[in-house]
Amino acid sequence: MQNHSRWHELQEILRQENLDGYVITHQADLNFLTDFPQEGFALLVGPEKVWAYLPMLLRDHFIQEVPGCEVVAGADLLGGIKKTVADQGFKRVGFDSERETYALGKKWEELGFTGKAGIVGKLRITKKGEELKRIQKACAVTAKAFRMLKPRIRPGRTERSVSLELEDLMQKMGAEGVAFELIVASGPNSALPHHRSSEKIIKKNEPVVIDFGCTYKLYRSDMTRTLFTGKPNGVFQKIYQIVERSQKEGIRRVRPGVAAGEIDRICRELIAREGYGDKFIHSTGHGVGLDIHEPPRVGPKSEEKLGSGMVITVEPGIYLLGKFGVRIEDTLLVTENGSRILTK
Amino acid sequence: MQNHSRWHELQEILRQENLDGYVITHQADLNFLTDFPQEGFALLVGPEKVWAYLPMLLRDHFIQEVPGCEVVAGADLLGGIKKTVADQGFKRVGFDSERETYALGKKWEELGFTGKAGIVGKLRITKKGEELKRIQKACAVTAKAFRMLKPRIRPGRTERSVSLELEDLMQKMGAEGVAFELIVASGPNSALPHHRSSEKIIKKNEPVVIDFGCTYKLYRSDMTRTLFTGKPNGVFQKIYQIVERSQKEGIRRVRPGVAAGEIDRICRELIAREGYGDKFIHSTGHGVGLDIHEPPRVGPKSEEKLGSGMVITVEPGIYLLGKFGVRIEDTLLVTENGSRILTK
Repeated sequence: MQNHSRWHELQEILRQENLDGYVITHQADLNFLTDFPQEGFALLVGPEKVWAYLPMLLRDHFIQEVPGCEVVAGADLLGGIKKTVADQGFKRVGFDSERETYALGKKWEELGFTGKAGIVGKLRITKKGEELKRIQKACAVTAKAFRMLKPRIRPGRTERSVSLELEDLMQKMGAEGVAFELIVASGPNSALPHHRSSEKIIKKNEPVVIDFGCTYKLYRSDMTRTLFTGKPNGVFQKIYQIVERSQKEGIRRVRPGVAAGEIDRICRELIAREGYGDKFIHSTGHGVGLDIHEPPRVGPKSEEKLGSGMVITVEPGIYLLGKFGVRIEDTLLVTENGSRILTK
Repeated sequence: MQNHSRWHELQEILRQENLDGYVITHQADLNFLTDFPQEGFALLVGPEKVWAYLPMLLRDHFIQEVPGCEVVAGADLLGGIKKTVADQGFKRVGFDSERETYALGKKWEELGFTGKAGIVGKLRITKKGEELKRIQKACAVTAKAFRMLKPRIRPGRTERSVSLELEDLMQKMGAEGVAFELIVASGPNSALPHHRSSEKIIKKNEPVVIDFGCTYKLYRSDMTRTLFTGKPNGVFQKIYQIVERSQKEGIRRVRPGVAAGEIDRICRELIAREGYGDKFIHSTGHGVGLDIHEPPRVGPKSEEKLGSGMVITVEPGIYLLGKFGVRIEDTLLVTENGSRILTK
């Protein structure tokens, strides 16, 4: 993946922010800028050059895979960065206050560096070129795996066996692994949004919530389907249809310029009008990329405007504790004129 | 898992540290204290009581699984903690400066809280009861999966297919998933300690480094084996035997009271005496538990004394760039009189 154009975009932001340099230590941000799938190293982005600080363990590997950086190898990443900043005479250096640990942030502070959150996040929120291809592939694999799995979700199987089969199907189609711990939640378990797949046997005439996704070349997908083993009863059908309409209405409103919070409001109001407002106990969605949850948030207070190239989920749900739950989720690409569902 | 005894131990440390309360937001620390396998919540441990702050999304699930906490539900975790601290009249509250983000740490600081690193880490470093059973199970599954896989690692297969099969074998024996992204590195790839399993086809007469582990009920295992497809040549045999002797000597020295750095020194000196000191480009080992890398570090500067109940890896290696590498790793339990290898 060619990331040098992203380095230039970052350098442009640094100029606007009047920064000489910016320190990056967060794994997904490092992956974004280098496509080097590791952690435990650091970057310093200067006005015209990028330095990489690596333990010996990673040095040769990094040099093979990431051209164009000046590599500083050794155990003391902090000392390395301090030296470069002094040698280059950088006066204003930033670090990500929301990613950095308190202890390390204090050390940057002592060196005179400034906490500036979300600078790399600003770039990551809009997906381009190869990134988009990878997310599309992850989403396509996810949707296809579910189509293959669906007829095999039968009473008598455990939640765990369904979860493992789904993982297997996605990996056979090229996924590296799961994007998060897959959720297969049947019967009353489906009323717990973050249930872990258990040894519970799926029974006849039960709802099953399946929340799943995969990772393809570091980028992720996210999708949820709710089905019913047997002939759906009236209550299930009613709740399902409310969630389905809520999701459709939310998706219909997705387009550049709309605030993310507006999508949440539309999904939530429809569910509230039906009398289940207090049973929709999470945000409507989130951005998806190198992290499974990343900006923009799609919640009640999300003021961020959607823009073309953002990838978000829309996933309303209703949870009736002790009984059952329904959630329907797709990953969408925000396009010039609206959106495109990637998980289908 | 019964964690209340761990709460009492933590409360005892807080008394010694003269703290009224301690805030916990780090996922593995939360898992350790609650056995609730989620993230995105917080605990406040007081002298005699524990408060849990959860988004609505997790509330009902948490109440079902974690008895004995006072649960505060709502989106504003920080506000909830602030209120409890005021209501209880806590004067000295700590947070983990090495786990907390800089941005949130600054907010705790504004509330008058104090950064205190490693308080939960002090407890996590010694494994007890159910924790130890889980690690032992994870290690046993890992070792058994490798015995089954070994005869099936043949020239003509891709690294990735071997990696996926290994994952599958571990999951069939009860593992939830992999403990980290498995490494299957053949030929020159084996000289890169953190190579990712690729589509490269394993050839005849090549070394293959396999670094793998699984997660069982949140606890992890870590193991590495190096083999040769065909009749090992003289260079490979020589390097292999050096690494094997280094690992054996290191393991032999493991016992309570010995500094972790002493294990590193023994492994490293043996390799250096053979002339490959600069080809052993990483630490000798690390603690294993809820995190794949956790205290104690087993590196050149590790002053921490080993103690009974600690679980560590010993994994020396030699890496000849462009040619091949050898690493041998086991996970050990430090016992009263020495150690026991868990990955066999």
